[in-house]
Amino acid sequence: SGLVLVKNPHLDLMEEDVLYHLDLGTKTHNLPAMFGDIKFVCVGGSPNRMRAFAQFMQRELGLAAAGEDVADICAGSDRYAMYRAGPVLSISHGMGIPSISIMLHELIKLLHHAKCRDVTIIRIGTSGGLGIEAGSVVITDTAVDSSFQPRFEQVVLGDVVVRSTELDKDLAEELLACSRDIPDFPTLIGHTMCTYDFYEGQGRLDGALCSFSSEKKLEYLRRAYDAGVRNIEMESTAFAALCGLCGLKGESRHFHLL
Amino acid sequence: SGLVLVKNPHLDLMEEDVLYHLDLGTKTHNLPAMFGDIKFVCVGGSPNRMRAFAQFMQRELGLAAAGEDVADICAGSDRYAMYRAGPVLSISHGMGIPSISIMLHELIKLLHHAKCRDVTIIRIGTSGGLGIEAGSVVITDTAVDSSFQPRFEQVVLGDVVVRSTELDKDLAEELLACSRDIPDFPTLIGHTMCTYDFYEGQGRLDGALCSFSSEKKLEYLRRAYDAGVRNIEMESTAFAALCGLCGLKGESRHFHLL
Repeated sequence: SGLVLVKNPHLDLMEEDVLYHLDLGTKTHNLPAMFGDIKFVCVGGSPNRMRAFAQFMQRELGLAAAGEDVADICAGSDRYAMYRAGPVLSISHGMGIPSISIMLHELIKLLHHAKCRDVTIIRIGTSGGLGIEAGSVVITDTAVDSSFQPRFEQVVLGDVVVRSTELDKDLAEELLACSRDIPDFPTLIGHTMCTYDFYEGQGRLDGALCSFSSEKKLEYLRRAYDAGVRNIEMESTAFAALCGLCGLKGESRHFHLL
Repeated sequence: SGLVLVKNPHLDLMEEDVLYHLDLGTKTHNLPAMFGDIKFVCVGGSPNRMRAFAQFMQRELGLAAAGEDVADICAGSDRYAMYRAGPVLSISHGMGIPSISIMLHELIKLLHHAKCRDVTIIRIGTSGGLGIEAGSVVITDTAVDSSFQPRFEQVVLGDVVVRSTELDKDLAEELLACSRDIPDFPTLIGHTMCTYDFYEGQGRLDGALCSFSSEKKLEYLRRAYDAGVRNIEMESTAFAALCGLCGLKGESRHFHLL
């Protein structure tokens, strides 16, 4: 049917669903009227960047004059920022798996309550590249954990639940084809590794703590490259697992900055 | 010596240290002049709340008239917000262990570069309470993970590193004594459980996914209570581990909202 799925039997029994961190709810807002026509959701860490992206989309879609402002739909909360440009929703998710997970739970319920159909979600965050040209865009085929496995291990009430992190292969190919139309836009498809820690977890030598040698770092990053990893960030496994389970066609596309 | 410790041999070899997510650095800013006299750091998830806290501290310390604004020291970055009121720094850390870890790495380096001495750090975030009166403040004696163990397990280059999560017991008692001077201010000392996930991880029945029964949830929360847990949040184990390793006298004090 193309509807966004919610996998929670308790939800139907609730009289009201408050999306706390988005400052939205089923009784306070007419979610189908506000969001029913949404077809694309783009997410990224930084609120300023997601605002700039919504303004860019407004111009690209011919919906507004250059420089016209967009309003933060979640202005009542400072946890996330949300903007829309026609059928495109642009939302910030902060940094790390816990932060993006809270946003995705509430976004998925939002799209479900709004009765949206055939929604595509794309993460357009930044990442660190591995053995690739600076400025490249990595389109993720599979998100992997720090052991290079395509899984999202989540602790639920003390037990480990393992979820798949496959992303939509057709969408990845479609995005790659788009990039070919743009000159000087180095783009590739590869695995994206997701870590819980930015400094030690990604082998950075400039954190407040560093419990490893530069040799160990190089050996680890070489193994990651050999396993097909082309970039490293902090949200992709949770993004792939949650979107996959709830019927959102998902893709993670990363701008490689380093 | 009371100095803030950095446990990274590579750091001394660097010509410049850029604190990326704070938009500060050793070459662009005179960190000892800006921060050398800081004695207290208060951290919490929400930028608006940490701004309100800095304004409150300004008034309490007689440093400014009511309503006078405070300037965001990290205005060039939208990752975190930082304000100061005399010797008190007030910083937001977003939601979850990955987000607070990035901020703490850069904060610890900031205090180290600024040659600060005898710094006390207190997390004043919100949390969900467990079997306690609504509106209570929980002062954490020990942060525990979702298996109720006093440890922070962190994956560093594919290997699990285990770190202690003890907090300063004297500081906890001191804070408890302060609360006794305020009427109708229910305060207790207890363990704080830290999870990676807000919805499923904390046994909430209103997420987009819910893979457990309400009976299982109750049984888990009962076990947590029996293990001494009095509240649940998403940053305390990383906070306790990182501050403890770097010689910051740390305490986590949570306002119980639910």
